[in-house]
Amino acid sequence: MNFPSWMSDIQQRTEAALEAALPPSELAPARLHEAMRYAVLGGGKRVRPLLCHAAGSIFGADSPLLDAPAVAVELIHAYSLVHDDLPCMDNDVLRRGKPTCHVEFDEATALLVGDALQTQAFQTLSNRFAGISAARQLDMLHLLATASGSRGMAGGQAIDLAAVGQQLTISELEYMHIHKTGALIRAAVLLGAHCGEATPDALERLGRFANRIGLLFQVVDDILDTEASTATLGKTAGKDAAQNKPTYVNILGASEAKSMAGKLRRDAHEALAPFGTSALRLHELTDFIVERTF
Amino acid sequence: MNFPSWMSDIQQRTEAALEAALPPSELAPARLHEAMRYAVLGGGKRVRPLLCHAAGSIFGADSPLLDAPAVAVELIHAYSLVHDDLPCMDNDVLRRGKPTCHVEFDEATALLVGDALQTQAFQTLSNRFAGISAARQLDMLHLLATASGSRGMAGGQAIDLAAVGQQLTISELEYMHIHKTGALIRAAVLLGAHCGEATPDALERLGRFANRIGLLFQVVDDILDTEASTATLGKTAGKDAAQNKPTYVNILGASEAKSMAGKLRRDAHEALAPFGTSALRLHELTDFIVERTF
Repeated sequence: MNFPSWMSDIQQRTEAALEAALPPSELAPARLHEAMRYAVLGGGKRVRPLLCHAAGSIFGADSPLLDAPAVAVELIHAYSLVHDDLPCMDNDVLRRGKPTCHVEFDEATALLVGDALQTQAFQTLSNRFAGISAARQLDMLHLLATASGSRGMAGGQAIDLAAVGQQLTISELEYMHIHKTGALIRAAVLLGAHCGEATPDALERLGRFANRIGLLFQVVDDILDTEASTATLGKTAGKDAAQNKPTYVNILGASEAKSMAGKLRRDAHEALAPFGTSALRLHELTDFIVERTF
Repeated sequence: MNFPSWMSDIQQRTEAALEAALPPSELAPARLHEAMRYAVLGGGKRVRPLLCHAAGSIFGADSPLLDAPAVAVELIHAYSLVHDDLPCMDNDVLRRGKPTCHVEFDEATALLVGDALQTQAFQTLSNRFAGISAARQLDMLHLLATASGSRGMAGGQAIDLAAVGQQLTISELEYMHIHKTGALIRAAVLLGAHCGEATPDALERLGRFANRIGLLFQVVDDILDTEASTATLGKTAGKDAAQNKPTYVNILGASEAKSMAGKLRRDAHEALAPFGTSALRLHELTDFIVERTF
């Protein structure tokens, strides 16, 4: 199967799995469920589920086994976007080409949507699923929680808040992104690997790969924010600059940021080398992340 | 040990366990961690941890085993208070006798505090702890998630939002509270019971007991909101009436609400009868919940 077909296949099965994990919008409280579905379904590239499935495929994990962790990590991502868009945070009105959740519904509902999506992630991942031991599943839950909390993604958001209007060094910026974006991307990769029989050594190597692509993802995002249009992005372009947020582009300049992306891309491929052709999908995803821009 | 000593003992060990579960405030991101500790430590009656320990004691579960679920359920409760107090929700300025989190810090920080406290609950409960099988621990996680999410506590908040300014019937009000307050109280009791060797039959009976005291707790809360002062409550009194929220007192009147509380109290005691003296602490807690008022 070529990469575009594989990608589309995983995106479709993830959409179906998300659809099944979320309560139907007829179920009370209907407005909350409708808003949860609005925030999650029918949009997004599903990068984290793709990474989860791609990492699992190295170890021969079956796709049905990978659906639950893929859904859980995507629900965490979706909750963070809903809260991040709120007026007290980024105050954004456009996401995935649609009005943000608090614009389409209201602020209180969007707050509860984010809360309930986070809970749903842990509910989905704590549901017993066949083909994996309870002990390993607990480890996966712990991994996802650690990646999402105050020492992971939520902590990265807090660092981001504190950084508005500040001059950061490259290493401070890297520290922020390792938490804000990197932690969950790393979790996506490692959750997939946990569904197979990944050795501690393989997990460590994949962790290093994930750190590279987490940063790569962010550098590319910063370049896109500067160079692409709102229509292409499906979210407001040029926002970081307007909000005076530190980015790779405004610290390094566009050309240096692009060469940093090139270096991260090479490092990512290199980290995968020992897996040989079994890591094909992760190689392809690495290129896909970069080729969104240049 | 008499009830006040037992209660104080559990409150102290819960405080210590919460203190240990939360990242130290020196750890980056320091402001987030400081705010998380502010929102959780040094206040609250710890009703849910008390219920968890009391239910566990029926089945001889050791206190150290009960600390993790007690902490997890209290963290979920604490997160819900922080988000509930936000301007887009109840917009409250006083909680446990102190300025609310968004007043003491800021709104964005309070949003992240709630998010990260929820995550911390699942992180704590997914940490392997001795004395319980991984399969049972997974069941406990699933129980807590289900009780907290859109079909439980968060769903109850959504129903509460929709009810502002509405005329509710008693059964609609009950439906709201079974979700908003009752689900987490029930989870506290059942998590405690799961730490012992509770049979499905015992769990079912405890579930019924928990439903009674969940409502009892709310009826008493509504009475307190009308009759007690802000100083006694440590939170703004008379808020429900001011916000035109439906309460047991404004639907039933104070006298009828008190007799409803009496009935719920008797039903709760009755549900515990088959456990004999092993349920002493739950009997005492039931009375404690009521005797806050009259």
